[in-house]
Amino acid sequence: MAPLRLYDYAASANCYKVRLLLAQLGREYERVAVDIFDGDTLTDEFHEINPARSTPVLQVSERGFLVESNAILAYLAEGTPLMPGDAFERAQVLRWLLFEQTDVMMTMGGLRFRLITGRISADSDRARRRRDGAVSALSVLEHHLRSHDFHIGERYTIADIALFAYVHVAPAAGVDLGAYPAVERWLERVRSQPGHVNDLQPYPANALAGAGRSIYG
Amino acid sequence: MAPLRLYDYAASANCYKVRLLLAQLGREYERVAVDIFDGDTLTDEFHEINPARSTPVLQVSERGFLVESNAILAYLAEGTPLMPGDAFERAQVLRWLLFEQTDVMMTMGGLRFRLITGRISADSDRARRRRDGAVSALSVLEHHLRSHDFHIGERYTIADIALFAYVHVAPAAGVDLGAYPAVERWLERVRSQPGHVNDLQPYPANALAGAGRSIYG
Repeated sequence: MAPLRLYDYAASANCYKVRLLLAQLGREYERVAVDIFDGDTLTDEFHEINPARSTPVLQVSERGFLVESNAILAYLAEGTPLMPGDAFERAQVLRWLLFEQTDVMMTMGGLRFRLITGRISADSDRARRRRDGAVSALSVLEHHLRSHDFHIGERYTIADIALFAYVHVAPAAGVDLGAYPAVERWLERVRSQPGHVNDLQPYPANALAGAGRSIYG
Repeated sequence: MAPLRLYDYAASANCYKVRLLLAQLGREYERVAVDIFDGDTLTDEFHEINPARSTPVLQVSERGFLVESNAILAYLAEGTPLMPGDAFERAQVLRWLLFEQTDVMMTMGGLRFRLITGRISADSDRARRRRDGAVSALSVLEHHLRSHDFHIGERYTIADIALFAYVHVAPAAGVDLGAYPAVERWLERVRSQPGHVNDLQPYPANALAGAGRSIYG
C-alpha cells in the first residue's frame, strides 16, 4: 500500500471524515497539521499543494495530491466493504456525496462555522437562508432514513461517513435534530460501527472573526 | 442496455450536462419535460421520484431513480472513454465533479439564474459574494488549464462536461471570461469534441421572480 500523508485541520468536519475512514480501514498515515486560521493555506507552498486552498488534502506517494474530502473518501474506500461494487449502488454513493457538499455542508456546516466564530448573527438573512437549506436537507435525509438503516440500503458506506460529519454537529447551527427521529437513530447506528472515532475539535480562538488570516477573512 | 428515462428541464445547465453526455455516448432515452417553474417538482408524484425536488433525475429500468447531475454523469460514463479506469484518475474526476457543484454551480451558476430572473440585483451583497466565489473558482480552473488540455490530464472526460455546463454561460452572471484565457481555450476544445451539442435553452417567462411556483419561490 502506498504511504499516505494527510494535510489536516483538527476542527474541520471535512477533515474529520477522512480521519474517521482511515481509522475504520486501519490505514496508517502521516498527519500534517494545517492551521487554516494562521494563514497556512494562504502560502505559495500550499497553493502548489491545492490551488483551491481547502483542506483536507491527501498526498499519495508517486501519484500526487487529491483534494475534496469526499473524493478522498471514495479513493480510500475503493475495494473495501465501505464502497459497493455494483454500478448503480456506486452512483447512489456519489449522489449522497454530492448532496452532502451542496445541501449539508453548505447549509448546516457553513452556518455552524459562521455562528460559532461570530461571522454572522443567528437572526440575519444569511443565517435564515442557510437554516432553511438545512431544514430541507434534513427532511430529505429523514424521508430516506425512515425506510433504510443507512444511505445505501442496509449497509454502512462512505455515504454515511460523509453525511455524519456535519449532521452530527447540526445542533451547534441552531438546528433541532429532535424533529428528525430517523436521522437521530441513524446517527446512533453510525456511532456504533466498529472502529468509530470522533476526534473533531472545537474551533480555536484564532478562528473567531477578525482574529486570524484565512480564506474566510 | 437498460432503457433510460430522463426527467429534464431544458433551461437547466445541470440537465444539459446529461443531455450532452447522452448525445456523445449515442445513448437513446425517453425525455420527460419537467416545468420547474410551473410547480412540476412540487407535486407528491415528483416527491416519490426525488424527495430533494431537483432535476435532472435519471430513471434506470428495474433499478430505480438516480438524482444529482454529476452522479448521473458518472453512472452513464462508466466503462466508456469518458471515465478513466485508473483509481487515482477516477478520484480526480470525482474531485472536479464535487468542485463543480460547490464552487462553480453555486457561484456563477446560481448568480446567473438569480440575475436573469430578477431574484437579486447585480450590486447586492448576495451577488457580490457569489461573484467573489466565481472569481476564485475560475482562478483554480485557469491555474489547472494553463498546463493541461483537459481536467484529467490530456483527456476529455465527464469532468469537462460537468464544468462546461455553467462555465460557458458565466458571462451571463457578469463574469468576464476574457481574464481567463486558458479557460476560454478549454471551452473551445470542449466545443470541438465529436458529437458536441448545445441545446441549453434560455429561462422562460415563468422563471421570473414572482411569476411561477418552484422550490426557488
